[in-house]
This record gives sequence, structure tokens and C-alpha cells, in this order.
Amino acid sequence: MKNSLAKALLPILYISWRDDVMTQDQSEIIATTIQSEDWLSPEEKSEISSLIDIENPPSRADLQSWRDMILPAVNASDEKETLTDVAIKLVLIEQNNIKDDTLKKLYFSLQNIEKKLGIISNEAVFAFKENHGTITSEYATEPSFEIEKLTEILEGNQRETIHLVKKILCRPSFKYEESTDIEVYREKVLKWCKILAKEGLGSTAYPKEYGGKDNIESYFAIMETLSYHDLSLVIKFGVQFGLWGMSIHSLGTEKHYKKYLKKVGNLSLPGCFAMTETNHGSNVKALETTAIYNHINKTFTINTPHQFARKEYIGNAARDGQMATVFAKLIIDGKDYGVNTFIVPIRDFKGNIVEGVTIEDCGKKMGLNGVDNGIIYFKNVVIPKENMLDKFASIDKNGKFTSPISSDNRRFFTMLGTLVGGRIGIPRSANAAAQSALTIAIKYGDQRRQFGPQNGTEVPILNYRIHQRRLMPYLANVYACHFALQYVTQRFLHRNETEMQEIEALAAGMKAYTTWNTRDTIQECREACGGKGYLSENRFDALKNDTEVYTTFEGDNTVLMNLVAKNRLSEFSKQFGEMDTFGMFNYVMDQAKTSITYKNPLATRNTDEKHILDSNFHLHAFEYREKEILASAGKRIKKLLDSGMDSFDAFNIVQHHLIHVAQAYLENIILKQFHAAVEKIDDVNLKNVLGKLCKLFALHTIEKNASWFLEQGYMEGVKTKAVRKAVNQLCWEIRQNAVPLVEAFAIPDQLLSAPIAIAKKN
Amino acid sequence: MKNSLAKALLPILYISWRDDVMTQDQSEIIATTIQSEDWLSPEEKSEISSLIDIENPPSRADLQSWRDMILPAVNASDEKETLTDVAIKLVLIEQNNIKDDTLKKLYFSLQNIEKKLGIISNEAVFAFKENHGTITSEYATEPSFEIEKLTEILEGNQRETIHLVKKILCRPSFKYEESTDIEVYREKVLKWCKILAKEGLGSTAYPKEYGGKDNIESYFAIMETLSYHDLSLVIKFGVQFGLWGMSIHSLGTEKHYKKYLKKVGNLSLPGCFAMTETNHGSNVKALETTAIYNHINKTFTINTPHQFARKEYIGNAARDGQMATVFAKLIIDGKDYGVNTFIVPIRDFKGNIVEGVTIEDCGKKMGLNGVDNGIIYFKNVVIPKENMLDKFASIDKNGKFTSPISSDNRRFFTMLGTLVGGRIGIPRSANAAAQSALTIAIKYGDQRRQFGPQNGTEVPILNYRIHQRRLMPYLANVYACHFALQYVTQRFLHRNETEMQEIEALAAGMKAYTTWNTRDTIQECREACGGKGYLSENRFDALKNDTEVYTTFEGDNTVLMNLVAKNRLSEFSKQFGEMDTFGMFNYVMDQAKTSITYKNPLATRNTDEKHILDSNFHLHAFEYREKEILASAGKRIKKLLDSGMDSFDAFNIVQHHLIHVAQAYLENIILKQFHAAVEKIDDVNLKNVLGKLCKLFALHTIEKNASWFLEQGYMEGVKTKAVRKAVNQLCWEIRQNAVPLVEAFAIPDQLLSAPIAIAKKN
Repeated sequence: MKNSLAKALLPILYISWRDDVMTQDQSEIIATTIQSEDWLSPEEKSEISSLIDIENPPSRADLQSWRDMILPAVNASDEKETLTDVAIKLVLIEQNNIKDDTLKKLYFSLQNIEKKLGIISNEAVFAFKENHGTITSEYATEPSFEIEKLTEILEGNQRETIHLVKKILCRPSFKYEESTDIEVYREKVLKWCKILAKEGLGSTAYPKEYGGKDNIESYFAIMETLSYHDLSLVIKFGVQFGLWGMSIHSLGTEKHYKKYLKKVGNLSLPGCFAMTETNHGSNVKALETTAIYNHINKTFTINTPHQFARKEYIGNAARDGQMATVFAKLIIDGKDYGVNTFIVPIRDFKGNIVEGVTIEDCGKKMGLNGVDNGIIYFKNVVIPKENMLDKFASIDKNGKFTSPISSDNRRFFTMLGTLVGGRIGIPRSANAAAQSALTIAIKYGDQRRQFGPQNGTEVPILNYRIHQRRLMPYLANVYACHFALQYVTQRFLHRNETEMQEIEALAAGMKAYTTWNTRDTIQECREACGGKGYLSENRFDALKNDTEVYTTFEGDNTVLMNLVAKNRLSEFSKQFGEMDTFGMFNYVMDQAKTSITYKNPLATRNTDEKHILDSNFHLHAFEYREKEILASAGKRIKKLLDSGMDSFDAFNIVQHHLIHVAQAYLENIILKQFHAAVEKIDDVNLKNVLGKLCKLFALHTIEKNASWFLEQGYMEGVKTKAVRKAVNQLCWEIRQNAVPLVEAFAIPDQLLSAPIAIAKKN
Repeated sequence: MKNSLAKALLPILYISWRDDVMTQDQSEIIATTIQSEDWLSPEEKSEISSLIDIENPPSRADLQSWRDMILPAVNASDEKETLTDVAIKLVLIEQNNIKDDTLKKLYFSLQNIEKKLGIISNEAVFAFKENHGTITSEYATEPSFEIEKLTEILEGNQRETIHLVKKILCRPSFKYEESTDIEVYREKVLKWCKILAKEGLGSTAYPKEYGGKDNIESYFAIMETLSYHDLSLVIKFGVQFGLWGMSIHSLGTEKHYKKYLKKVGNLSLPGCFAMTETNHGSNVKALETTAIYNHINKTFTINTPHQFARKEYIGNAARDGQMATVFAKLIIDGKDYGVNTFIVPIRDFKGNIVEGVTIEDCGKKMGLNGVDNGIIYFKNVVIPKENMLDKFASIDKNGKFTSPISSDNRRFFTMLGTLVGGRIGIPRSANAAAQSALTIAIKYGDQRRQFGPQNGTEVPILNYRIHQRRLMPYLANVYACHFALQYVTQRFLHRNETEMQEIEALAAGMKAYTTWNTRDTIQECREACGGKGYLSENRFDALKNDTEVYTTFEGDNTVLMNLVAKNRLSEFSKQFGEMDTFGMFNYVMDQAKTSITYKNPLATRNTDEKHILDSNFHLHAFEYREKEILASAGKRIKKLLDSGMDSFDAFNIVQHHLIHVAQAYLENIILKQFHAAVEKIDDVNLKNVLGKLCKLFALHTIEKNASWFLEQGYMEGVKTKAVRKAVNQLCWEIRQNAVPLVEAFAIPDQLLSAPIAIAKKN
């Protein structure tokens, strides 16, 4: 092929045979094209034909020799060239007297073939280059803020407690248990709890006079920080000091505090919170265990009326618990006074099960196997009158029932309301677990390389847009949930009676929202780490399986979301009711005003980057969605009721809608809190990076709900597309700070423990 | 209050105090309203005031007595009445001489208060009724078709094999292993595999002359049916007979078949498939293990060049494997000939590890702990020349490399292509696991009762719309995937060379799509079963954790979706290239024609139920989405390339888009196959119920992608809302057949094993 223009086809032929086996189609494209070219002689054409015969492929050695021929043309320039450039050069190296006309023909002919073959011309040339740098390859972690400053903001006023807990957890005695023997694991978790109790952490929330610190805020911080470690420990801790201890504190009175709280706090009296029964988990108002009052000896007799009324899933029951706060229907003289609470011994101090009590082990669970969940049956277990937790109801000297709350229903929900703290502790624990997962996955993604440009080095997987898309929004969510949970905590700490229903709904909602986010975050992180994510040593196993039940306990998430929505609707219907005709008119006018301002084409089609990234746009969109979706659900229900439908059926019909009512409400609160937290920051660099995360949370949430905004006419397609683009761009930008952002969680390496989270070089 | 009109307020007061503690607001509403009423005397007004004093609530006994007073009025009628009706009746019982005018005033006054308080009047009355039936309460399972007939359709021509496998699995020896000791579990799984091998199931896919049945279709059916049992067994089975055995069959030649296949099939030669290395899982082209050819003694020396080039996650390696198909770069005279495959002994027949081989245990994993995954290092392990699997490349007598495929790249992917069967077996296994989960969750949901209308019985949770919304779409997806996987299987069985790339992409895509669907299905089923779902005895633990890695092995799902999209794009770009200017014009015109027909307001706003449920609408929407999204991705990439961007960067920028390209392609195929399967059914009842499932799959998928359709202008908001409504309605309708539909999977109770899946009565 020396001194032949046919040589110009060599690069194309090489690429065609090298990347792939040449197909019949490709061969025909080349054959047909060259047939009409007059710069090739019949002999040359026939030579080319022989090189594209798919029955007769070139040998490996042939390919190698073609490559050797082409290389000088490639190396003749440092410029970024196309395959056609190389081809022309290849010919010119040998012949410098080719006519311009011929060259032109040659050029167009080559371009034509390349196009028809679908060759990306400026990419193909890299098949010959030694090094191939790209923007994607060269991207990397580049912190733009001081990590320590962010950690301080996250820690807030609990810095001291958090550091203390971390210090304890980093002791050698807290090394993770690796045994698959459940009894060994339970023993270890109990031992850990005892150490924490000894350090005074268990009684943190109790009054000072009973050995505590009267500091529930610190208690939450402890739960959260413990969640960087083994979650069985967190739950065992929470059962003992939270559920068991706080039930005494919230539902009992002075005499109970004196008798029990100190022993609960130092773990010399392990106990249970025995509410859930097999047949009643969500609908606890319908619990069936009975506590029958005996006038003569002033005692109660506790009974499990039938098999499915047994207490189930009770933490601390299968192995360690000596007493339990039992939720049971109080019966006096055959009359039912609703569900009340009683302290019932289940084991003596030696650990022997007391008479009348039968305990079964719940056995192996998906996770949390360090917690000894059990099943309890009561058969004529007699307890003294003073064992009734009597803050909200009691039995007087004459054996009469007395309570400041006349409604059994309301009394029960007031009692439950005092336990709302659990619904704050759980999501905070969940969010911490999600932080662990993100730390591991993001650090791994920053190190792990796979694939890369042709003849280039392999690229850290976190540089891939799709990998960023998988992880960055969860990073934003976890930060968002952090600030929202701080807000819920503060609302709870400074609550007054009139706010209680709102705070309960808020806590219930944030519990559901956060634990679902944790579920999804850990799942995505696991998958983002591939096979490494599947090995137990990298901790996704424990993180995923332990938090799995967070969406169920302390209230099933779906039930809670319904509850939140109903709370919102009842607020709305009070407004709605009060408004009557004129009010209704004003409400509609208010809506219309919104529409006038925001539903005009300038707004709905505004794809200006500045506008898309503007917090005011985000805040308004979230507020609008919350209001509008609530109103539309309200109207739907009203319409159904007005048509004469039973309200139970009507609420069932709109259930799917109600989940979105709750979601919109929560997302609005979360965004507001995240935004407020960013606003408070002085440090410019920090404000910038957290601001981006906040925008990502906002835009990613809008993207998730895009169809709703489009249906409403709040945005048009061009705008939701612009939102999607902005999400991609924010993910790309945040990637540079992703590692610093997880490092700000400041989870000690010993607790992370995952080998893949520790930098490796090979 | 005798003979007083004030008595008419009693029902409202009772409801206000009973359901809730009366709030300041509520009290004020009542006070203000009655103030202006002239049908109440000042004394009556003052009496009412005392009853709404929030500082002085009525006692429990007061409430009880009010209730007793109200009951006669409630029981006076069997009609469905409002609270106002009851109030009026209450007054009329005592006084039948009240003037019409006064009654009217009374009526409006009561209505006014109720409205302001937000009381749902016809619901509140149930607070006094004994029984409260609703549509929701009375809904139940009501099969409309013959289950057995559907099972036969699902089994197709593999009925015999499926029944045989189920029969074997129901033997007492296949009782699930409950030990948490991994070694005990591994031993059990190996024992099970040996039984299956003895029954001749292992060698099903091998040629008859080597003890097989030459029936790969049956092999897939076996894998699928085994997946109703322990999934460690499935994977161990798949590693031995699929990966290890089929690698010999697909990559080796006669001499290897003769020497190994029989022993592999009867499990006397346990082996491994050693491809993945620590540093290269997805990008297997870059594997680093070396096989250096030694001319003198005609051997290869196998080496692990550095720590991170060790073989990792290798099934059968940690405990049982005696040989392995090792993927390694072939080096002859210092030249690299790309990745080839070699049979390398790793243990002798006594189980002792051979010299030069080091094996580590991968340790505990999230799931599949019955499979002994291990890590293998090679140090100067010498194997004879004939151990090279030489179907695609070999070394001739002169020590020269020869291959019918000149490109190293292409040769490698051709080798991988022959192993595509694994990407069919895995999703079929995953789909079977999802069937188990759905069977358990749906049967439980049909039995489990929780909450209910006021004073009504509790309702089966599957009657709740949101519970249906959680499970019915997955039921539809699993059926949809079943038919699509049958299609992929048939395409694979009857493949020819020119279709291979398409079939590879199809299998890769269906592997990703199905395993993600399984992940989501099991997750939702677990949550839908609450605490019961968390107990290992109900099998979500194993189902979830064992299938967890399905999204990773046999190709990471995200990487596979990218691969599918690139395959689609390369098809598109060939078209695109060939089209050139005129072609491009025609293509745009084609698009426009679609727009003219389907983007006119009659279509985009058509909310007619018949249209929404019309299969033609669904099929067109899916087809349109596939085409349009592919074209737009193609155009985006072209634009980026034309702007001079490196193609590696360009493809990175559109990665998120590419996932949707793959998804739209797969969903279109799945819908077509599901639809075709329904069309083939003769039985009217069966066709009707499967048709509904198919529509649910279609509409739920459209709903999921609603924002895209809205952005395109393919539908307007009214239409996507109508789609949502139709999804709700289909879920409601299918619920009656949900139990029969999972019973059609015909999973034996012994294999389901979950106690909650077995009907209980209390």
C-alpha cells in the first residue's frame, strides 16, 4: 500500500476491526462508498475490498502492523486531531505532491465513511495515543471550606456530650462483636450498656434527685452519637433508659420515681416497655391485655385474654428484663376504663421468670440481634395497686376510677403523647446511621477507579455523573434532615400544651420521613460500593438490617404519614369551617393571587439559572405545594362526604393523596429549617457549600415532584428540565466537597470500621 | 337539662369531650355561637357555659350519663343519620310541641356549630352505634378465575421440570437451615447441591454425551424453581453447574468436555469461575492476573501481580472448589494477548490447597452465607498448555498465538457473550424470590386486621387503598417481568450470530430491571408486614439479603443500564449517520407525524376512562417514549461532540439521561411481551384479570414517568391525573384477586415457610 492514497483508509479499517468484528453492514458501507471514488484506482479498490472481507479478517499481526504504520502520523502532532486529520497526514508523510482537489475529495470521502459507520472521529484517534486526559479523569476532591467549622455547627451546644460519647465508644472494649452467635452478641450489648450506665449516660434525662442530669437534649445527642456504633446497642440503650425509664417518668408519679428511676438509670433494674400485642401494633387503642382491679386486697390481676393478645417484639424481654411497663385495659367491677399502664415484674433479680408469666424469644431478626426481643403472656399475675402508673388516672380509696381527663380515648392519647420523645430519638439515630453509610460510600467512590477514556487512566467512580446522582442528593437529604430534626428537638424541649398536637404530628412525620430516607440512603450506598458493599466487614450489612425496622417501630411509617395528614386536614377543616362562604371566597382569592404572581408564563417558563437557583423560588414552590395539596385533599374529602359517603370509606379513597399531603408538609418544614440554618452562617466558604447542598435538596425534591408541579401549571416543561439540569450541575459541583462534607460528620475511623472507607493506594 | 332545648347540644358536647379534650378555641366557638341564639334562655346558656369550661371538664361518669341520655334518640331509627338529626330527635322525644320555626333555628344553629368545630356529622353519630359497616370493611378476596389454569400458563412447557424440582425441595432433607453458624450452613448447602446433582439436575444444560440433557431451557426453569427455596443453594448451584461448568462448555473444546463435564455435573469436581479481581469488577477487560506461556515445557505460569489483582468474591473458593476457570492476560514472549481463560487447580481432591495458591475467606456477607466466597492469589502456579480454554484462541505448535478473532477486545467480549446465560438465570431467580415475598405479604395483608370505622370491626389491611398501592403494582411488575424473561429466554435459545449484540443488551437490561424490581418488591413487602416482616421466620430477612447482591453480580446494574443505552445509541447513530441530511429530514417528519396524531389536544387531554384503559394508548405511549428519549439523548451527545468535547466527557454528562434511555427501552419490551401474553389467552376470566394486571403495569409505569410525558406535551395534567385515578381503581379491583394471583405462583407452603403466610384465625 506504499505511496497509495488507499492508505488514508487504514485508520478507519483499523478502528473498525479493532473495536469490534466488522459487520456485514459496515463492510458494505465502506465498499459502496469507495466504489464511487475516483481518487482510488481499481486495483486499490480491490485491495481495500480484500481488507474488509468479513469472511477473511486480518490477523492479529496484520492489525499490529497497521497500527505501526499509522502511529507516525498520530505522533506528528500534539494537537487534538480527528481520525480524518490523521488519515490525511498519513498520506502526506509519503506524498507531498497531492493536489488540493484530490485532498478535498479524500477528506469528504473519509468524513462520509466515518459518519456512516458512526465513528466518533476525535475520540477514535485516542486508540493510538498513549495518554488520554479528560475533564472527567482529572476531576477530584478539592475542599473549599474548613471541615472543623462545619462539625462545630452540626454539634451545636452538645459538643461536649458528643465528644464524651465518641471517646467512650473508641475504647477497645467497644470493638464490634463479630460472632454470629446471638447469645454472645446479646451478652456483649448488655455489657456495653452497663459501661454507658456506669458513665452516667443512661440517666441523663431523669431528674437530678434520682441520679439524672435532667437533660433530655443531651439524651438525644447521646442516642444520636451512639448510632455511629452498633445499632443494637442504641436500641437496647433506648429500651432501657428511654422506653422503660421514661414510661415511669412520664406516666408515673413521685413514688415510682423514688422506687425505680435510680435503679433503671444504673441498669440494676433492666426493664421493658410492653405495649405492642400480636394483634395490635398500630391500633394500640384496641389492646386487649386486661388489668382487673380487686377491691378486697387492692391489687390488679394482669391477663393475656387469648394467644394473639400476647405482648410481642418487646425489647429486653427475652433475656434481661426484670419488670415491664404493661399497657392493659383497666377493668373495675366489670367496666372497661380504657388502656392504662402498670409496672409488672416478669423476672426476679436472679433472672428467674416469675409465676404466671411466660416468655418466648422472638428469635432471629433481620437485624438488631443484640437486642433480646421477646413475647410475654400473663396468666393471673397479681400486682399491688401502687404499681399502676398514675399520673393520668388512678383508683381512689373507695376503689373508684379518677382521672383529670374524662375521655378514655383522650387520656390514652395524652399518655402516648408524653412518649413522643421516642419519635425524635429514632429519626436522629437513623440519620446518624445514614451518615455512616454516606461516609463509607463517598470515601470509597473517591478512591475506587473503574473504566476510563480510551488509553487513559481509570477514573474515580465518584467522577461519574450517575454516581454523583446516586449519592449527592442523599448527602443533601441527610444534612437537611439534621437541621429539621434539630428544630423538632427544640420544639419538643420548649413545648407548651397547646402546641402538643402539632409537635406530635411533626415528630411522627419526621420519624417517617427520616427513617425512609435512611433506608434509601443506605441501600444506594450499599449498591454504590458493589461487591465490597455486600461484605459485612464494610458495615452496610449491619447498617441496613439494623435500621430496617426503624420504618416500622415507634409507629409504622405509613400509618404515621396518615396521622400527619389527618392532623393537617383537621387544622385545615377548622379553618375551612370557620371561613364559611365569605371565608371560602377569600381563600380562593388568596389562591388566585398566588396563581397570578406565580402562574404567569414569565414565572412558569423562567429557566434563567439565577432564578432556578434562587432560594425564594424554592421556598415558594414548597409552600405552594403544601397549601395546594392540602386544600385539594380537603376538597376531595368534602365532596365525597357531601355525596353521602361514609367518612371511613372517604378517607380510604384519598389515602394515597394523604401521603403526599404529609410529604409536602414535611418537605416544606425541612427546607425552611435547612435554609434558616444556612442563613445563620457567617463563614462565607461554609455558607457557600451548605447553600449549595440546600439548593440541591430543594431542586432534587422539586424534580421528584415535577409531575405534580407540571399538572398544576406551576411550572412548564422547559422549567422542570432546567431544574433537572441544575440538579446535575449541583451534583457535579458538590462532588469536589463530598469527602470534606462527610468528614464533617466526624465519625471516628474505629466506629466506621469499614476497610473500604480507609484510603488505600495500590 | 330536662325538657330543655339545650339538650340538643348534648351530642355535640359529648363528641367534643369524648374524642378529644375540648380546646380553648372549640369552647369559644360554642360559647360565641350560642350567645346569639334566642331559642336558649339565659339560664340554659349559662348551663351550657359550665359544660364547656375547659378548666372544669366533665367527669368520666358525666360523659357516661350523657351517652345514656343520647342513646334512645340514636336507637330510635335504623336510618343513617347525622348528629344534628340525633340532636333534634333527642329534643322531640321529650317535647313534641316545638314550633317549626324554632326547630329550624335549632337545626341551623347546630349545623353551624358542627361545621365550625369541623365535626363530620354523619360519621360522629357512629360514636353511639354498635355496628358500623362500610364498603372498606366488607371488601374481601373474591377469585374470578381458575388458579390452576394460570399456573399452567406460567409454567409453560417446563411444567414437568418445575414439578420435579418442587417435589425434591419439599423433601424433609431440604428443611431450611436455621443455624447462624456459617460453616454449618455451607455444609448444608453443599449437601443439598449434591442431592440435586444426584437427581441429574446439575448437568441438564450439558451435552448428552457428557451426562447431560442438552436442555438449557430446563436449566433456567430449575434455577428459577430452586429460587422458591434457599437462595444460597441457587447461587451455589449456579456457580458449580452454570459458571464453572458452562465456562468449560462455552470457552473450552472437546478435550475439556471429555475431561471435566461429567465430573462437574455430578459434583465430584467442584469448581470456581475466577474472573473478578479486587481492582476490576465491572471493567473486566482490565484484569491484571497473568498467564505467561513457557515455550520449553509448554506450560503457563499463573500469577497475581499485586495484592489488588487477587481474584475476589469467587464462589466455591473458600471451602469446596478444586479447580477454577481463571481469567488472565495471556503473555507470550513478553507480549500481551489480552484476557483469556485457563483451568487452574486450586485444591487437590482431598481439599488441600495446592502449592502457589493462597485462599482467603470473604467472610460474612449480607446474605448468601451458604456460599463459600473466597479470595484467590496465585504465585507461579504452573499449568499444562491444554488447560487453556481454547475455543476462541490457542497457541499453536510453534508457540504462536492464533485466534479466529483478530481483535483482542472483540475476542474478549465474544467470550463474555457466550456467558450471557447467567444474565438470564439471575433475573429469573430474582423474579421468583419476589414472588415468594409477594405471596407472603399479600396473604398476610388479606388476614391481618388493623383499625376500622368507629365502633366497627377492624379491617383487613389489604382493604386499605394505600396498602393496595404498595403491593398491587409490584404484583403487576412481577407478572410483567415473568413474561418478558420468558421472551428473553426464547430469544437466547434461538439466537443467531447477527442478533447477539441485541440479545446481550436485552439480557443485561432485563437483569438490571428485574433485580431492581425484586429489591423494591421485597423491601415493600417487608414493610407491609411490619414487625412480623422483620422476624427471620417470615423469610423477608433471607429473601432481601440474599437477593441484595443480585443488583451487583453478573454485572453492576448501573453499568449494565449504561451498556444497554450505549447499544441503543449505537443502533441509533448508525441510522442517524446513514440518514444524513435527507434521512434526518424524514426522521424529523416521522416525529412530527407522531406529534400531529398524538399531540393534538383531543389526545393529550383525553381523560375518557375507555381511552385511559386502552392498551393501544399504553403501547403507543411506551413506544413513543422509547424512540423520543433515545433520539434526544443522541442529539444531546452529538451536540456536545460537535462542540469539540471529548466523547468520554460527553457520555459522562448524559449518563443520567442514558439510564432513562435503557429504562424506556426495557419497559417498552416488557409491556409488549405482557400484552402479547394476555392476547394469547382464550379463557375469558383469566384474560380479564391478567389484562387488568397488564393495564396496571402500563399505567403505573406511565404514572412513574408522568413528568416526562408532561414535559413532552404528550399528555396534559388532566390526563396524568386520570392515569393516577385509574391506577388507584385498578389496585382496588385487583385486590379481590390478589390472593389467587399469588397462589397461581404455586409456591409450596413448605418452601414459603413463613408462619404469617398461613391463614390464622383468632
